[in-house]
Amino acid sequence: MITRMSSLFLRTLREDPADAEVPSHKLLVRAGYVRRVAPGGYSWLPLGLRVLRNIEAVVREEMDAIGGQEIQFPALLPKEPYEATGRWTEYGPSVFRLKDRKGADYLLGPTHEELFALTVKGEYSSYKDYPVILYQIQTKYRDEARPRAGILRGREFVMKDSYSFDLDDAGLDRSYALHRDAYVRIFDRLGLEYVVVKATSGAMGGSASEEFLAVAATGEDTYVRSTGSGYAANVEAVETPAPPARSVEDKPDAQVHHTPDTPTIESLVDFLNKADLGRTFTAADTLKNVIVKTRAPGAKEWTLLGVGVPGDREVDLKRLEASLEPAEVALLEEADFAANPFLVKGYIGPGALQANGVRYLVDPRVVTGTAWVTGADKADHHVVDLVCGRDFTPDGTVEAAEVRAGDPSPDGQGTLVAARGIEIGHIFQLGRKYTDAFEVDALGPDSKPIRITMGSYGIGVSRLVAAIAEQHHDELGLVWPRAVAPADVHLVVAGKDDAVFEGGERIAAQLSERGLRVLLDDRKATPGVKFADAELVGVPTIVVVGRGLAHGVVEVKDRATGERTEVPVGEVADHLAGLTGR
Amino acid sequence: MITRMSSLFLRTLREDPADAEVPSHKLLVRAGYVRRVAPGGYSWLPLGLRVLRNIEAVVREEMDAIGGQEIQFPALLPKEPYEATGRWTEYGPSVFRLKDRKGADYLLGPTHEELFALTVKGEYSSYKDYPVILYQIQTKYRDEARPRAGILRGREFVMKDSYSFDLDDAGLDRSYALHRDAYVRIFDRLGLEYVVVKATSGAMGGSASEEFLAVAATGEDTYVRSTGSGYAANVEAVETPAPPARSVEDKPDAQVHHTPDTPTIESLVDFLNKADLGRTFTAADTLKNVIVKTRAPGAKEWTLLGVGVPGDREVDLKRLEASLEPAEVALLEEADFAANPFLVKGYIGPGALQANGVRYLVDPRVVTGTAWVTGADKADHHVVDLVCGRDFTPDGTVEAAEVRAGDPSPDGQGTLVAARGIEIGHIFQLGRKYTDAFEVDALGPDSKPIRITMGSYGIGVSRLVAAIAEQHHDELGLVWPRAVAPADVHLVVAGKDDAVFEGGERIAAQLSERGLRVLLDDRKATPGVKFADAELVGVPTIVVVGRGLAHGVVEVKDRATGERTEVPVGEVADHLAGLTGR
Repeated sequence: MITRMSSLFLRTLREDPADAEVPSHKLLVRAGYVRRVAPGGYSWLPLGLRVLRNIEAVVREEMDAIGGQEIQFPALLPKEPYEATGRWTEYGPSVFRLKDRKGADYLLGPTHEELFALTVKGEYSSYKDYPVILYQIQTKYRDEARPRAGILRGREFVMKDSYSFDLDDAGLDRSYALHRDAYVRIFDRLGLEYVVVKATSGAMGGSASEEFLAVAATGEDTYVRSTGSGYAANVEAVETPAPPARSVEDKPDAQVHHTPDTPTIESLVDFLNKADLGRTFTAADTLKNVIVKTRAPGAKEWTLLGVGVPGDREVDLKRLEASLEPAEVALLEEADFAANPFLVKGYIGPGALQANGVRYLVDPRVVTGTAWVTGADKADHHVVDLVCGRDFTPDGTVEAAEVRAGDPSPDGQGTLVAARGIEIGHIFQLGRKYTDAFEVDALGPDSKPIRITMGSYGIGVSRLVAAIAEQHHDELGLVWPRAVAPADVHLVVAGKDDAVFEGGERIAAQLSERGLRVLLDDRKATPGVKFADAELVGVPTIVVVGRGLAHGVVEVKDRATGERTEVPVGEVADHLAGLTGR
Repeated sequence: MITRMSSLFLRTLREDPADAEVPSHKLLVRAGYVRRVAPGGYSWLPLGLRVLRNIEAVVREEMDAIGGQEIQFPALLPKEPYEATGRWTEYGPSVFRLKDRKGADYLLGPTHEELFALTVKGEYSSYKDYPVILYQIQTKYRDEARPRAGILRGREFVMKDSYSFDLDDAGLDRSYALHRDAYVRIFDRLGLEYVVVKATSGAMGGSASEEFLAVAATGEDTYVRSTGSGYAANVEAVETPAPPARSVEDKPDAQVHHTPDTPTIESLVDFLNKADLGRTFTAADTLKNVIVKTRAPGAKEWTLLGVGVPGDREVDLKRLEASLEPAEVALLEEADFAANPFLVKGYIGPGALQANGVRYLVDPRVVTGTAWVTGADKADHHVVDLVCGRDFTPDGTVEAAEVRAGDPSPDGQGTLVAARGIEIGHIFQLGRKYTDAFEVDALGPDSKPIRITMGSYGIGVSRLVAAIAEQHHDELGLVWPRAVAPADVHLVVAGKDDAVFEGGERIAAQLSERGLRVLLDDRKATPGVKFADAELVGVPTIVVVGRGLAHGVVEVKDRATGERTEVPVGEVADHLAGLTGR
């Protein structure tokens, strides 16, 4: 196949678009792959669409290889199934909603668990039918509050979403493992550097969950990895190792101290160390109690929740929210303090919370037998040696404290360091949340119903175009891996003579006959313009047909390494077929 | 490729779905190709998606062959471009509208003229850039008042829409002709019987326009064709041949008659023939004046419009609306008559209309010199011999009279007969409606701007699945043409012995190695169930591996003709490769 630049619907730009911050966004716009149509809405121009389709093809092959069956749902979906699972409400403003001419409610599908569960229920009835893996490669919609970075976080995007249906947990484990392996193959084939991190399952429900993050300094997702093992996790998913519980017997009694003007941890520690208490305190010895309010999705009333974390750490609201999902979390307003006078700002302790029926969750480090300095529920007073399990009993633990570089790795090997990535895949063991909602059962061999268990697996297909571009570019432009490149060879005709143009056409025809996809720059432009465009567009191999042609050679340049080779015209087809493996 | 029925996500149904009326809808649901998700919203199950993709591939090949370049736009589109062309309003309730979380207005794209015009304006600037043909194969949305017949008229559907951009009318003619030829090739390859009919361009604007209709008794579109030529047209597009104008000089004077109790044409003709006027009258001698009200898109105020047609014909409101588009048309209510007392119901004539400034359009048969019996604007009175061009002068002509079987063909050859079809393609010469709206100009060789002219061309890709099914089925099920079939061979293992199953697997493997797509029925079901499913699913060639296997033969059955052939096992791969051309 030969694509001629002289007629290709492509105009490259010399300047970065004004709204672009990350390299992939700048380069995909400059090289004419995508154009902005609306906030978070992009059109795919010819070269961009080719890259997208190449990625789709890889995803499709690997999904088929694990027995996935491709189907396709509408994007415009009725409200009812999403109401049945509560997600109509849970999604809040992040889903596009609309009414049809009769006033019926619809949404633009952000993900299709409900529909797949209902469809499997509709078609299958016997245990013999299972397991099954279904998938679609489909346009999805999310009303992002801040669409950003071009196609990296759009409001309309292409996703591969698949769903597994199994008779039991062992089956779900197998389907999950099949997907995990397929994702590894997909991202390897696409030339991505990525990590697989433990993730929280969030609004999706369910238990085991991992994210695939493309390593990128510009990524939105922060994750941590261990210096001493392969451990990697989303910050939200890091589980704090709990120390062993200790005896409460040998601890001194709790004592309330007058600690004037110590509303902050720093001022408190300072005060205590200046007081003559016979030991030195650090912020880690204090227990900071933060009060938030939460409510179940769709509920009107808020409920107070106390969260206790070691005073040397901030509360990480994203971690707290992830721990409490699907409940909503909000900070208290002045009115809340006014309505709950037992909350003494800066001096809140476990006592008043528990006396007033406020649920109290603590960091996993707050185990039985640990002694803390904390608020005494009275202005300017703190209590020292308040012992967990003796003087207060939390209602449970919560992952709310910030994770810091240098924290011990949860697997006990090494310490954590922070890195950034782009979420490109996510796999979930959903379990029975959706099959319970729709009563998806198989009739078992004993004629008793078996409740089906589900997995849900996504790949951000259009986002991958940007993720690959983030990892594969240099200062001159894009540098596509072969598997996704919009062409195999970018053939530049560098010269004005008819002989050079004819030579270019002839070589392009030879390459095309060998099954190579040739992007032929047959424009009447200067070599400088053509070379710059070739670097920008990023096809892996650039062939220059120019002066050398008179001596029977062309130049073959590797876009990634810059390496140049002179190749006799008669050998160029073989040479390139070898390079590209065609 | 081998697809095993034992694990295929497919459950056929013995009964027609309750909501299905047309054969394609019944069979596509029964054979497990599609499932209803919402009114006018269907999911594509594995076999259905294959057929859809096969059709897309044919469309893509032929669009590429005429130099079309594939791109892809979002479906979720901002209001502004559609407001600039007036279509935000014109579409009325037939477009899905929504707001994002910031309250900005969006629509789900029904067609993309605006976006393509803006994109070409954004990329191209010189006359050297043109012409260009761009297309997309994309999901589209229309809020149909009555979605029906499954995927035949859905609210979410797949369309190929393309747009041509040319420097002049001759260029547009060429682009239009290229598309017309490509459409002919596409529909021929898909095995469709179809007609190309003249069409009105409706809300799209523009001039030349043709529709491709798949011939089908169940089709929604009525068209007419000539018995004496290749003429075919949508009923809305039939142009009434006007007789030559005649002299007004030799006509008797107009005379008002007291015609009591003659509010209908029939009663009037009866009355006149009983009166002693020296000649016989027929309904065709009378001029029926129908008053409607119209308004421009987006306008609030209605304006009266008089429409005069020969009394032997009804006014066809769809034809009238098509003639007046994009204006809206409504029938009068009692209040309108009350507000306009000069309208004497049943006795309206041209006189009062023109005296009161009401625009008056007549059927093309009402030419200068024709004499009519019509209302005298006074209850119980009619006027005879009111001569056009002498006693009244219409403001123009309008295509409002019904078209009838037996009418002369507009091309002067033969008469018209009515038929029904399914609209599968539509090609338009848009002209400059959209390029004027967005000032899409090319800089000419003389540095002066050239306003670009556009064409717009659509194919209902998902609808084609149903249209093909309408034409290719029998009482047992679907009968796919090879080009679109979900598999090349349906291999039925008919027997219980392991030997038969092993033989089936072996033959399937041989066929697959030859590049044939095999649907292998390896289920543990009775031969009867399997044969019925094979007929229902409609793969063109059915191979039965059964009793004959012991004697070294299998049965090859042609799904369309029912013809059966015994083929030695050793020859079956060659035999089928020959049949399918692989």
